Amino acid sequence: MAGGIRAGIKPGSQKKDLALIYSQKICNAAAVFTTNRVKAASVLVSQENIAKGKLHAVIANSGNANACTGEAGLDAARQMAKLTADALSIDFSEAAVASTGVIGVPLPITVIQNNIAALKASLRDDEQGHAAALEAIMTTDIRKKDAAVEITIDGKPVRIGGMAKGSGMIHPNMATMLAFITTDAAIEPKALDAGLRRAVKRSFNRLTVDGDTSTNDTALIMANGEAGNPPLTAESGGYEVFCAALEHVCTALARKMARDGEGASKLVTVTVSGASSEDAAEALAKSIASSSLVKAACFGADANWGRVLCAMGYAGADFDPEKTSVCFKSAAGEIELCRNGVPVPFSEETAKRILTEEEIEILISVGEGPGRASVWGCDLTYDYVKINGDYRS
Amino acid sequence: MAGGIRAGIKPGSQKKDLALIYSQKICNAAAVFTTNRVKAASVLVSQENIAKGKLHAVIANSGNANACTGEAGLDAARQMAKLTADALSIDFSEAAVASTGVIGVPLPITVIQNNIAALKASLRDDEQGHAAALEAIMTTDIRKKDAAVEITIDGKPVRIGGMAKGSGMIHPNMATMLAFITTDAAIEPKALDAGLRRAVKRSFNRLTVDGDTSTNDTALIMANGEAGNPPLTAESGGYEVFCAALEHVCTALARKMARDGEGASKLVTVTVSGASSEDAAEALAKSIASSSLVKAACFGADANWGRVLCAMGYAGADFDPEKTSVCFKSAAGEIELCRNGVPVPFSEETAKRILTEEEIEILISVGEGPGRASVWGCDLTYDYVKINGDYRS
Repeated sequence: MAGGIRAGIKPGSQKKDLALIYSQKICNAAAVFTTNRVKAASVLVSQENIAKGKLHAVIANSGNANACTGEAGLDAARQMAKLTADALSIDFSEAAVASTGVIGVPLPITVIQNNIAALKASLRDDEQGHAAALEAIMTTDIRKKDAAVEITIDGKPVRIGGMAKGSGMIHPNMATMLAFITTDAAIEPKALDAGLRRAVKRSFNRLTVDGDTSTNDTALIMANGEAGNPPLTAESGGYEVFCAALEHVCTALARKMARDGEGASKLVTVTVSGASSEDAAEALAKSIASSSLVKAACFGADANWGRVLCAMGYAGADFDPEKTSVCFKSAAGEIELCRNGVPVPFSEETAKRILTEEEIEILISVGEGPGRASVWGCDLTYDYVKINGDYRS
Repeated sequence: MAGGIRAGIKPGSQKKDLALIYSQKICNAAAVFTTNRVKAASVLVSQENIAKGKLHAVIANSGNANACTGEAGLDAARQMAKLTADALSIDFSEAAVASTGVIGVPLPITVIQNNIAALKASLRDDEQGHAAALEAIMTTDIRKKDAAVEITIDGKPVRIGGMAKGSGMIHPNMATMLAFITTDAAIEPKALDAGLRRAVKRSFNRLTVDGDTSTNDTALIMANGEAGNPPLTAESGGYEVFCAALEHVCTALARKMARDGEGASKLVTVTVSGASSEDAAEALAKSIASSSLVKAACFGADANWGRVLCAMGYAGADFDPEKTSVCFKSAAGEIELCRNGVPVPFSEETAKRILTEEEIEILISVGEGPGRASVWGCDLTYDYVKINGDYRS
């Protein structure tokens, strides 16, 4: 079940700001948190509570990151879990908490306290409940980010659904990515954790909007086993199917976040193939997708492939520039700009037409190796500067 | 001696584009080149020629980076050195070459061939020669970047002068930083090389405009010994004085490059102190100065210190957020925003006034350690996006 309400955490806003996801049946759960050394209080509390691999619920607020808030912030995050646990008659450790919004401002915990009953009352097991929760975790997000798949495991239909918020650092401050995924699969905690980590590595960790890893990043999955399949372990026949489906959901959410990157006008997918390893391909693709110069060229629909090679050159991964080829591709066509490290004459007009599309791909081949990876990013626009240069108030 | 002319490397431009620096007396020389795996042909040739530690001259062009140009580019770079050597009656290996401008376009070597005599004729040993050479290496640079000091070593006046170009990646493509430094100090090649590397580490390598390391970066020093001091070695009493003076010149050039960063409206100096080591302080300061969010906040004069802590958190360096303090400072005053990791109430009005200045400092203390480093950067503005999103032609 899911629900969301406007509690008033962000004064002056009419948007929903408090979300709850709840499973009546206890779930096996796993989560991946920010690698930032500065971690939000909510992350610290959820890290503790997820340790047992069991959750009933996750509560999340937008409008306040509860980061850089000291001991008082940690108390507030614990209280947020406690209020949720009491309202749902579950154990404190079975509730995860997440926050997103401005850093360095005390979390108004009394607002949450005064609204916890209304939040519980908003829980529904339908599309409306999902939509309300999703709306309540959004901050400067413009587009809604959700994805769902159904697969069959041992003859049983199994569903995986996810919602996410985030895309660059969120006005007025940061505390970026939250993703909550639920599934009715029966799956052992260890296998669930491994599957989530693998999916996150290939989805959210291959997403870049502005290179700033926030203090609040959280991807969390709850599996309540209602599908009735024989519980999956890493050795089960159906495990790979489950993992592929989970990766599909996470990738869909990651792409939606990139497309909705702050100020973005384009989704830019960078794919590197032929690298010595998947890690090398990922490092090269990330460096390209993160380059301010490449991003600005995408905004300007400028087929500036020299910037692509340059970004690869400082990626820290091994590759041979003389075996490198660069193509730009979109719904309007595909064009090769560089083959084996040297320029290929090309039509500027065609290139411009290709790069003017809303979804563009940069395709790089660096040789004959088995390593391949895609990274999702967006262009760098005036609006990014506007959104992030604007005064907080 | 120095000189510069308009050869016509960049068609349609009326700006000077070919520079020459020449010492009649052979110089001990040292250079530091880009760490980018994709290196310009000019870098490859200069790396070979500097190997003996002896140079008479350096020739540099703007308007074309001679990078990603394959074998033909390498031939052109060699020919550029050969033309210079022949014109000056010096050995091929005594001429360094440097290029800056668009990547992936063949260098019009015949233009240089046709103009080498005029370039030689432009050599002068005065301010005008210096100014012509400096003008000829500039591309989108708006401000001129030069610096000079005089010191005394063993009773002899010794001069160090430098010129530089670059500031972000240069329209229409990249190939950023060139710095040419000359001195009349007598100094052994090994000591000169070590001194340059130390100075570069603390100056050009602590400069960030957009995080893109170009294919052409070159910092080069020539020392002709005309000052007549007893030749310096790393053990000489005067060596530290020389190194400090060299670092001063390089730092002055680095600051000027940051201030003239593409689209920049502000110079942002980030200083981290109290870190466990100088390297840790540098990593933290670099992460802050490189953060698009911090840079956009500087543009917007927004005292968004949460972004500073966030950028430190993903710097990969060890520090304790709970011992971290953040101040913003400028000619308009100084304000503390965060002490020991928690917010300090502050006047938004005062903060805004401080951040509206053209030169601002972000001062971070992370504890009691000995590590301290400053990094120079600039704000992220609409103009950065405009300059780099504009179509090449």
